[in-house]
Amino acid sequence: MSENTDLLAWLGARRSIKPKHLTLPIPNASAWERIVAAAAAVPDHGQLHPFRFALLTHEDRAALADLFEAAARRSGGDEQAAQKARSKALKGPALAAFVVKTTTEQSVPEFEQVLTAGAALGQFMQALRAAGFGGIVLSGSALEDCDVQAAICREPGERLAAWIVVGTPEQSPQSIDG
Amino acid sequence: MSENTDLLAWLGARRSIKPKHLTLPIPNASAWERIVAAAAAVPDHGQLHPFRFALLTHEDRAALADLFEAAARRSGGDEQAAQKARSKALKGPALAAFVVKTTTEQSVPEFEQVLTAGAALGQFMQALRAAGFGGIVLSGSALEDCDVQAAICREPGERLAAWIVVGTPEQSPQSIDG
Repeated sequence: MSENTDLLAWLGARRSIKPKHLTLPIPNASAWERIVAAAAAVPDHGQLHPFRFALLTHEDRAALADLFEAAARRSGGDEQAAQKARSKALKGPALAAFVVKTTTEQSVPEFEQVLTAGAALGQFMQALRAAGFGGIVLSGSALEDCDVQAAICREPGERLAAWIVVGTPEQSPQSIDG
Repeated sequence: MSENTDLLAWLGARRSIKPKHLTLPIPNASAWERIVAAAAAVPDHGQLHPFRFALLTHEDRAALADLFEAAARRSGGDEQAAQKARSKALKGPALAAFVVKTTTEQSVPEFEQVLTAGAALGQFMQALRAAGFGGIVLSGSALEDCDVQAAICREPGERLAAWIVVGTPEQSPQSIDG
């Protein structure tokens, strides 16, 4: 095999795209499935698949907005902070949750499992690009909130690790935010 | 943008290639630099770059073989186990160390830093493919050995996280090991 300069350049050209520069359309169910499948083709010691991508519905996002707002108020935020927190659940065309699930019941160290999850997150962002979309990985204090964790996680050992805002990049040079 | 089916399929077709199915050539200095640069284009909260790829020299590998052998003997291995441990440092055309360095001096949680490192490791393996090469991420008990860690790590906070065996995949269907 020889070097594919375009492919190497394409890999290196990944950039996060802020929610305000993401528009419709978003991946349909079939595209989402292909993106998630490609994301899983990462080094995964023991084939434990210690991660999951959950595309949230409008109803999920509305419920999250309530939780974000409540978390902001609990931590002493004023009305403005509460509304700002709320808006974070609603920004961008689509929102996905990235969930990590490690286990201590296998010989594979948890550290390696987290590396695998990170590889899948990175590859998800590349698969999103390959499928004609774009996005950004976001975190923030709401990830640590118990009610938010409980809203997303389905079973013991799962950890909501990041949000992914997903959409179609605007067709302008300014849409690239680094 | 529209879906690039080939690109999505290419991302999803990554497979680890065992050392015995890797041959020469290995990346030269210039190709190595391009691969490592592409590997860094991952979501990286705070741009902390919490990872490093170190291509080992023949001398490094010979020294590692001694350390692997010593570690095996210390943990009670017999002559056969010692020789087997030794051989692990010498298998495959090239060996690289993947080093993670997280910090607690930033607001970015360490968990996120490890996810970023994992994303870089995954993208490194893809960049390797794009550059015409292949490889496999390996771990094993020698990673935990203090002398082995000390041989690879350069500063406090660094952690030798994995080995990467690198080479050119054999041109046969049997070279794909999953």
